[in-house]
Order: sequence, then C-alpha cells, then structure tokens
Amino acid sequence: MLKVFAFSTPNSVRIPIALEELGLEYEIEPINVRKGEQKWPNYLAINPNGKVPVLVDNDGPGGEPITLTESGAILIYLAEKAGRLLPSAGAVRARTFEQLLFHLTAIGPALGQLGFFKRQASEEIPVAIARFQTESDRVLAVLDRVLAQRQYAAGGEFTIADIAHFGWLWRREFAGVNLDGFPNIERWYRGVEGRPAVQRGIQRVTALVPTD
Amino acid sequence: MLKVFAFSTPNSVRIPIALEELGLEYEIEPINVRKGEQKWPNYLAINPNGKVPVLVDNDGPGGEPITLTESGAILIYLAEKAGRLLPSAGAVRARTFEQLLFHLTAIGPALGQLGFFKRQASEEIPVAIARFQTESDRVLAVLDRVLAQRQYAAGGEFTIADIAHFGWLWRREFAGVNLDGFPNIERWYRGVEGRPAVQRGIQRVTALVPTD
Repeated sequence: MLKVFAFSTPNSVRIPIALEELGLEYEIEPINVRKGEQKWPNYLAINPNGKVPVLVDNDGPGGEPITLTESGAILIYLAEKAGRLLPSAGAVRARTFEQLLFHLTAIGPALGQLGFFKRQASEEIPVAIARFQTESDRVLAVLDRVLAQRQYAAGGEFTIADIAHFGWLWRREFAGVNLDGFPNIERWYRGVEGRPAVQRGIQRVTALVPTD
Repeated sequence: MLKVFAFSTPNSVRIPIALEELGLEYEIEPINVRKGEQKWPNYLAINPNGKVPVLVDNDGPGGEPITLTESGAILIYLAEKAGRLLPSAGAVRARTFEQLLFHLTAIGPALGQLGFFKRQASEEIPVAIARFQTESDRVLAVLDRVLAQRQYAAGGEFTIADIAHFGWLWRREFAGVNLDGFPNIERWYRGVEGRPAVQRGIQRVTALVPTD
C-alpha cells in the first residue's frame, strides 16, 4: 500500500497528481498545516524536516518498506517505480531533471517567500517584498520562454517536471501572482489543469481541508 | 569535450568536484559573477536563467551536443553518464535524491537568503535576518541528525548528495554560519573536504577568481 501524508499545499498536491497519472492506488493521511500539525512530535518522527508531503511505500526497494520525504524525490521514486513520467534516456530525460530542479530551486522558493512576506510576515518589509516580486517575475518569464518552444516543460511529453511546476502555479494566488503577460504558461497551465488525473489529484487534497 | 561555465560559488563548485570524482576531462570557462557576467546577453543566450554553473557536453544523448543548466540536474546527468555516484537501485538511490533535494530546496536557499540579508541587502532588516537564521539553524540540525546515523548523506557510500551538500557548507561563511553544535556535519565535512578529487575541484574554481 502507498500512503501519502499531505494537505492542500503546492508541494503536497504533486504526489496525488502523480499517483493518479500513474494509476497507482493510495490513501491519504491529512496533516493540517494550518494547525501546524507538520511540527507535532508524532509527525516529526515521520519527517524530521517537518514538511508535507511524505510517502510511505510498504513495498519499497527490495520489498522493504520505505518512508520518503521531499516532493521532488517522491516524484522521481514513483515515476521509476511505475516506469512512466520520467523518460528513461535521451535529452528529454536531462531536460526533465533540469525543469524539475528549476522549479524546486527557483520558482517554488520565489513564490513561497513572496507569499510569506506579502501575507504572513509580522511586519510589512518593502525591500523583501520587492526582492521576491522581482525574482518571481523573472523566473516566470524564463519559464514562459521555455514553454514558448515546448508543449510541456521538458519537451513533447508530460513528465514529473510538469507536475512539479503545476503545484505552485495552482497556488499562485498565495503569492499574489497571476499569469497576465505569460501566455505560454497560461496555455500550458490550462492543458495540465484539464487532465482528468490532475483534477482527481486536486480533489483528493482539497477534500482534506476541514469545512467547519 | 565537457565544458563548464562556472565561478567560485557554492553551486558551481559541485560540478568540478563531480567531474574530478568521476575522472572525466573538462575545461572551465570563468563567468565572473562579482562583475555580473552571468546576466550579460552573451551568457543569457547560454542560460536564460542567468546562473552558473552550466555544462556543455559535445557528446551528449544520442551523440548530440547538449547544454544543461541547474547544478542538481548536471550532477544527475554526469553520474548517469559515468555510472557512478548515484546508486542504480535500492533504498540508497531514493535517499540520494531525497538528500540532493533536501539540500537544494532547504539548506541552499536558507544559507543563500541569510547571506543576502546579512551582507548584501540595501538596508538591515532584522525580521528577514531572523527568519533565515532560524531556518538555517533548523535545517542544519536536521542534517546533523541524518549524519549521526550515516557516514554519508544517503548511506554508506559517497554520492552526488554529498557533493550537493558540500557546496554551501564550503561557503558557509557567506551566511555567517559555522559548524559549532553540529558535530556530525563537522565530521562529515572534514571527510569530504579531505578527498583528493574534492580538493582538485575546489582548486579549479578558486583559480577562476582574478587576483588583481
């Protein structure tokens, strides 16, 4: 059995999307980050880094259970387990890792810090907001030019790099970012959002948010 | 021929270290980031994201040349090209990606932002410094606990995850960080720093800094 510890967050949503795309069965254990449950001792015993998502695979390498953190590492693990979403060779494999890492080290951090300083910091700090607004605008422009030349992030096929990009673009309102001026990202976003498996993955994590 | 565009930076140094560990021949083209050369038009034509390092492999996938950005993607590419530094299967493969991504999404950004707000911001912003100091202390403590249980980042063998971690820990003074209180990182750091290939990689990038 595959079990995912997750919530309705940019990093979490990637894993149910990948699992739905790959046709793998799984269950989700909600970790309510709005209540700070990712920092509770029983969760830190699962992920000492105190983040969602986490994957538990009872049938891991060599038939042994494995508990894995880092959404990017989980995406690679699941793609290799199922033999899809990560090309096995060629330039498109290198481009998949390049775009996965471009998202995780550039776009994700920029939007995450921008949202923090716009919405959650204890005081308004114009220098910090300007820093991360400039960086968000810059990296989204870089992605827009990539997607002007390719249907998907790494080339002609949908890969885990698209799933990585989708997480934060799906939650772009947190950072107060929109896609005006990025027509190629907008075209790509609509295509990815329209995939049935992506819709099912989104529904699985949004259903975790208590309605009361 | 393998060519690396690089400078004496935390992200750049990883690539010569990997190339030296793998015994691959290469040349380095210096991109002086202190002069902002990574944002010059002729370099943006090579990497539109305006960052070092970049790898050019004239004998890439299918015998075609490839230009690759993102130090993490370059590490994976080189390890797969040479068939070393990235275990081909098993839990240690998953741990290698997990630690590579833990560094690139947590430790690297924390130390990078901390150094920026301590040293380069146009004004002193205590809230921002405190945010990234707290995060740096936290993630280094997480790494220290990992290294209390393992000789290297992913297990018993030296991998690209160790090379990823080494870059920023080698340049930790930029962030005003030291290893006091992190005895397991310190033990690991001394072991990695002592590797002859690591020393050669460091020498290759430090030699790029003009002495005048």
